[in-house]
Amino acid sequence: MINGSILIGAREFRREALFSATNPATGETLPQRFCEAGQAEVAQAGALAQAASAGFAALTPEQRAAFIEAIAQAILDIGDTLIETAMAESGLPRARLEGERGRTVGQLRMFAAEVRRGDWLDVTIDPALPDRAPLPRSDLRRMNLAIGPVAVFGASNFPLAFSVAGGDTAAAFAAGCPVIVKGHPAHPGTGELVARAIASAVAACGLDDGVFSFLPGTSHALGTALVTDPHIKAVGFTGSRSGGLALAKLAANRPEPIPVFAEMSSINPVIVMPAALAARAEALGAAFVGSLTLGAGQFCTNPGLVIAVDGAGLERFVGAAADALAQVEPAVMLSPGIHAQYVAGVTARDNTAAARRVATGKAAGGANRGSGAVFETNSADFRASHVLGEEVFGASAVIVRCTDLDDALTVIAALEGQLTATIHMDATDAAGAARLLPVLQNKVGRVLMNGWPTGVEVTHAMVHGGPYPATSDGRSTSVGTLAMMRFLRPVCFQDVPDALLPAPVRAANPWKLPRKIDGMRENAR
Amino acid sequence: MINGSILIGAREFRREALFSATNPATGETLPQRFCEAGQAEVAQAGALAQAASAGFAALTPEQRAAFIEAIAQAILDIGDTLIETAMAESGLPRARLEGERGRTVGQLRMFAAEVRRGDWLDVTIDPALPDRAPLPRSDLRRMNLAIGPVAVFGASNFPLAFSVAGGDTAAAFAAGCPVIVKGHPAHPGTGELVARAIASAVAACGLDDGVFSFLPGTSHALGTALVTDPHIKAVGFTGSRSGGLALAKLAANRPEPIPVFAEMSSINPVIVMPAALAARAEALGAAFVGSLTLGAGQFCTNPGLVIAVDGAGLERFVGAAADALAQVEPAVMLSPGIHAQYVAGVTARDNTAAARRVATGKAAGGANRGSGAVFETNSADFRASHVLGEEVFGASAVIVRCTDLDDALTVIAALEGQLTATIHMDATDAAGAARLLPVLQNKVGRVLMNGWPTGVEVTHAMVHGGPYPATSDGRSTSVGTLAMMRFLRPVCFQDVPDALLPAPVRAANPWKLPRKIDGMRENAR
Repeated sequence: MINGSILIGAREFRREALFSATNPATGETLPQRFCEAGQAEVAQAGALAQAASAGFAALTPEQRAAFIEAIAQAILDIGDTLIETAMAESGLPRARLEGERGRTVGQLRMFAAEVRRGDWLDVTIDPALPDRAPLPRSDLRRMNLAIGPVAVFGASNFPLAFSVAGGDTAAAFAAGCPVIVKGHPAHPGTGELVARAIASAVAACGLDDGVFSFLPGTSHALGTALVTDPHIKAVGFTGSRSGGLALAKLAANRPEPIPVFAEMSSINPVIVMPAALAARAEALGAAFVGSLTLGAGQFCTNPGLVIAVDGAGLERFVGAAADALAQVEPAVMLSPGIHAQYVAGVTARDNTAAARRVATGKAAGGANRGSGAVFETNSADFRASHVLGEEVFGASAVIVRCTDLDDALTVIAALEGQLTATIHMDATDAAGAARLLPVLQNKVGRVLMNGWPTGVEVTHAMVHGGPYPATSDGRSTSVGTLAMMRFLRPVCFQDVPDALLPAPVRAANPWKLPRKIDGMRENAR
Repeated sequence: MINGSILIGAREFRREALFSATNPATGETLPQRFCEAGQAEVAQAGALAQAASAGFAALTPEQRAAFIEAIAQAILDIGDTLIETAMAESGLPRARLEGERGRTVGQLRMFAAEVRRGDWLDVTIDPALPDRAPLPRSDLRRMNLAIGPVAVFGASNFPLAFSVAGGDTAAAFAAGCPVIVKGHPAHPGTGELVARAIASAVAACGLDDGVFSFLPGTSHALGTALVTDPHIKAVGFTGSRSGGLALAKLAANRPEPIPVFAEMSSINPVIVMPAALAARAEALGAAFVGSLTLGAGQFCTNPGLVIAVDGAGLERFVGAAADALAQVEPAVMLSPGIHAQYVAGVTARDNTAAARRVATGKAAGGANRGSGAVFETNSADFRASHVLGEEVFGASAVIVRCTDLDDALTVIAALEGQLTATIHMDATDAAGAARLLPVLQNKVGRVLMNGWPTGVEVTHAMVHGGPYPATSDGRSTSVGTLAMMRFLRPVCFQDVPDALLPAPVRAANPWKLPRKIDGMRENAR
């Protein structure tokens, strides 16, 4: 099942340059060796994807939905090998990976259902007005078209749900775009298994094999070649800020610039209001540590910043958090590189005079274990410090003690764009929360109340996005059905004879799509 | 009514640096002098716009629609002074400018109606599932939010419909974004009149005056300051490719990059099919010249390229075009600069061995008159020539003689992204047209049959956009109601108490908006 190949359409390639993955739980190099794809493979995959583009975009909703569902089934059909491979390559526990597989399959099926529903085509018709004076109006029919081949860079922290067949791939397929995945070097075996599942679905559905290619590799040169390949029309990326910005810069400097949808960094502020603290500081402190340390803190939506008004309630919150964190075993992090960056980030916080450590997890006892570390500071020191405001990927957070709500608002005003913001409140905090909400909603993609930002529901209303630098395009989301819209563009047909029109905009509405006529919604279903 | 001021919110400023406009019809400098806005005025207008942002975004649809309608009425209330000023500054004839005023007012009213309809908020609700296993689902409510202050750079060729209160401004206001207009230096008096109309509507509606500012000027420094002002969150631009790309580069290199929606250049290919040529070559040739020379050829959608299979039909087409163009009086172009660029572009075509001139308009007899010039070439020479493939803004076009439809497809394949593509066909051309359509739809924002691309209907289904370099973002349009979406971004509210939610996503749906519940459309109206 795994042999380390490069998969370009239906063909397998092998090259000399080889790499291996590490089992982060043991620090040992895993035995399987994987080929490094390079510029030549990018060019082949790009040309193949371009050749497959028009045909794939023109599939009926039913055909494309069936393909996406076939991928979901093929992933399930891999069986336990997929879970065991992912465990070995990521250090994530079985239950988490089984849950993530369920999420991945559910996400694919949700996109299949959305493809069938057809809203994404946004069919909008302004019929001809031949008798209008002084000039008649032409017949105008607008629909969305797939943008073309999409390059997907998977994330290390979701080796299934945000990697080879993850959210970006599912959204691009749903929109009708061929996908070329740059395999993540931390989980190449997991990636190859899923890539083979997609390729088998392509074959089983009788699609042009250019619809999907898988290019494993460790080099920046591979990513550069992929983003600058002229056939690629958009990029989906989940990862570090430096990585996302580098790709965005490459894409902007192409002869034909293309959009990059990079989900990059966020510290996800949590504001704990006074009445909530008074009522349940201990429970909140413990729950905060639960969210902070979930999955070794390796979530984009990890709560890395707590903002609260100083006082007895906050003391109790900090005390409870310290007690809870002291009980937390250090967890295996995703890779030696991520672990090393986490240790460096925590060390920088330990070394700044702007903060002091107030809570610590159990000491790290094995390879690549991350031990939790919570710091506290005040509003002015936080605003002046780069070390405290930047994301440390892992179970480290900063608590900012504010003098009052206005002081908290100055902290919020100084924040960069974020994926999420959370308010914990009780009924008597409502007036204060009402002041915070309009400020927070302009900083983030999602505002939560009395919950924790980890745990991103995959659904219609979800926004996993946010203003720069949370993402490179704050007008988009990478989770939920809305994610499809990143890979579509509108086209208008004027006075085109019905027989020559694409099916979605034909008068008889053969695909039974929801439509707008003269701006008013038609009840097609 | 016109005194050359800079308008920042409700305040008027004057500065020492002054400039004047030219009457292109006479070449004379017009008497009124206008102030040059600079970095200080940008900073003031930006801060004022930011301060007005949240309040303006939170207006009810009715309030914002009433404001947009008040602008339309205020423009009509200027009366004939507006037409006379625009005639003097643009050289465009009265009938054209009266029509353009009607289009501008109609466009504003269309956006007002669209604001009331509320589809643009895209309200999407996934209700809580407290009993779901293994984990309950939170209540999730998504809506679109205004992106923040928008900088608008108007176009010279539509001093009303694509300038101070033109499509970009109307779309940004509709989305709930304050607007700062960089006044076009070719029509500063027209700009000031319209700016005062908008300011009067802001005052009459009791809005925060930061909703609108007008910064006239001639300098690149003004544009640079505006695009790099930290309060600006998006840019709308219509103009040259060099100008649009310069702004896009500035925006991408900001500490916080922002989107630039630049509508830049297009040669709008027209493919004339064999049976259509056989049936009506003379009529098509004459109609082509009519579209080419409309408004001195100064339309983004001007048909600058004709592609046809060589033969007797094409000879007749070229002959008819030459006869028609020989009767066309040279028209006043918009500015001395545009005229000089047109002359340079035509001269370059005259000087290339890759083409020969086959049709010429009447000789230019006054200041800044553009005389039509049509060239012909073959497929290979066209594909090898930069001079022939780039836009010459004005009444110049290139006819490419192809050996057959496959040869025509190689020409189309070599084209850059375009705003439009047109096919002229008769019934027996259908098989050929069916081959062209899938190729053309991937190159352009709008495909037309048996019409001419000049004349862009302002409506729901219109797409005035297209792949790069037609625009800087092929996923957008700058004409039609869809243009609003450029200035909106989604935000999700999770488990926020109903009383604290913004009105659009409250359970009772107080604004009676169309909504989706669990992905299915609710019949709210």
